[in-house]
Amino acid sequence: MTNQVPNVFADRLMEAVRRLGPLCVGIDPHPALIPGLFGSPGPASALAWGKAVVDRCAGRVAVVKPQAALFERWGARGVLALEEVCEAARAAGLSVILDAKRGDIGSTAEGYAEAYLGAAASCPADCLTVSPYMGLDTIEPFVAAAERQGRGVAVLVRTSNPGSADFQSLKVGDEPLYLKVARALAPMTERLMGASGWSGLMMVAGATGPQEAAEIRRVAGQALFLVPGYGAQGGGAYAALSGFVPGPSGREGGVVNASRSVSLPDAAREVSRTAEWDRIIETAIDAAQADLVQSAAGRT
Amino acid sequence: MTNQVPNVFADRLMEAVRRLGPLCVGIDPHPALIPGLFGSPGPASALAWGKAVVDRCAGRVAVVKPQAALFERWGARGVLALEEVCEAARAAGLSVILDAKRGDIGSTAEGYAEAYLGAAASCPADCLTVSPYMGLDTIEPFVAAAERQGRGVAVLVRTSNPGSADFQSLKVGDEPLYLKVARALAPMTERLMGASGWSGLMMVAGATGPQEAAEIRRVAGQALFLVPGYGAQGGGAYAALSGFVPGPSGREGGVVNASRSVSLPDAAREVSRTAEWDRIIETAIDAAQADLVQSAAGRT
Repeated sequence: MTNQVPNVFADRLMEAVRRLGPLCVGIDPHPALIPGLFGSPGPASALAWGKAVVDRCAGRVAVVKPQAALFERWGARGVLALEEVCEAARAAGLSVILDAKRGDIGSTAEGYAEAYLGAAASCPADCLTVSPYMGLDTIEPFVAAAERQGRGVAVLVRTSNPGSADFQSLKVGDEPLYLKVARALAPMTERLMGASGWSGLMMVAGATGPQEAAEIRRVAGQALFLVPGYGAQGGGAYAALSGFVPGPSGREGGVVNASRSVSLPDAAREVSRTAEWDRIIETAIDAAQADLVQSAAGRT
Repeated sequence: MTNQVPNVFADRLMEAVRRLGPLCVGIDPHPALIPGLFGSPGPASALAWGKAVVDRCAGRVAVVKPQAALFERWGARGVLALEEVCEAARAAGLSVILDAKRGDIGSTAEGYAEAYLGAAASCPADCLTVSPYMGLDTIEPFVAAAERQGRGVAVLVRTSNPGSADFQSLKVGDEPLYLKVARALAPMTERLMGASGWSGLMMVAGATGPQEAAEIRRVAGQALFLVPGYGAQGGGAYAALSGFVPGPSGREGGVVNASRSVSLPDAAREVSRTAEWDRIIETAIDAAQADLVQSAAGRT
């Protein structure tokens, strides 16, 4: 362990992933699923729950992924809660991938980049998810900000939802659109490379499409993967790691997100004591992390 | 004129467009471009300027389009300003297309849909821009909310930025991706149809690609177009209207957005008196509206 925090996002992330495992914990405050323990549904409950999840994650996982939509539903008060959760996570030594799926034309994308990846970001994140549909010039302001600030950008390539095939899998010549997108990101991947051998230009490659993730790895070079769909969405550890490659301590190449199954498990819904909730969440996090670490080590 | 406001977005919008013209005024608070008259750069200045633009638009245009990114850069205080600008615009009888380009998997998209199109929306908009890359199931929650609440959804099809061709124009079989996207939206277009003969399932079709807009019209049926790129981005009125078709009072079929050229013109940057700023903005709005109305009527 070292007190020096690497100033490149990919290196900060991989230092912690190699130490703790590839689990990323989703912080998705679905109002109907947050235990009554944290108060009645609203931004205050989302904040209290989100900070409690952060506390349980500290020292157990490398990274958390707050979901912007579920904070935004509460308007400005929800955004304030999101900002506080992101700040609490970073203060606890966790990396933060903010899942906001932003994207816009250049001058406007700079606004988003400043809000989340800038030197004086209102909602500081280590990495922001962005959508590629509008083209590379709309991703550029995010990559430029990430380069300046030692942060990352996670581009949607092949998502985990049932409808992901509608457009992402359409054949462009002899290969699907998502591979064209992955190939087009190569120069940006180079720009965010760290000493760890990995790039903070992340690609979202869902666990519900393991074959697709393996194909994406063949063209993605050293881009780290953000893998959604493990756990509640149905993807297992083996599928989740299909885009990983051999590394110093087992297979590596990204982080695997679990949301409901670890931060909003059914068993924690009705508990009335904080200590009991803490224990359930810690157990769920540790079990998911162990499942992934063992699978990465080839022990399952 | 009637006091009865149609409860379908497309009808509300087209009633006003037929009366006033197709101009949509963008409210994009670029901090470096807002006149000092409204205070030093920050959320208070974005709010004061945004409400002043709304006042100038009332009675002159049918619709305004606030740009979420440029409010979000100020964090929760910026989001509060955005909410107030949207409320002020609706109170002034303007339709609001919120340009946020959201999109996510179903359960999460519902969060965004509630935030902007729901019955108790924190930031009430008549229509929200969304990105199609993740697939139709990610657009569905927005369309369902729009159907329930008499609102609209504007899907990115062919955008106005230089990089729009990177992925949108890739050939899928014998036609570009953007036409596949437009065709796939046909059932959703039917669901948001109004008595005006137009649908509140809007398609974003940039003025910088007039041939593409005409192609999209051939497959888009009665989807209204949201046309960015007129004015500062270089598209003229003729190009902006290329996806329009003959209607009761000239060509119609959507709205044409202008941002900087009408709400942040160079001539208004250094003025020191409110009355002078008002006059410059009104003149810019009226000139753009007249340019579009005349072009739609075939008089230019």
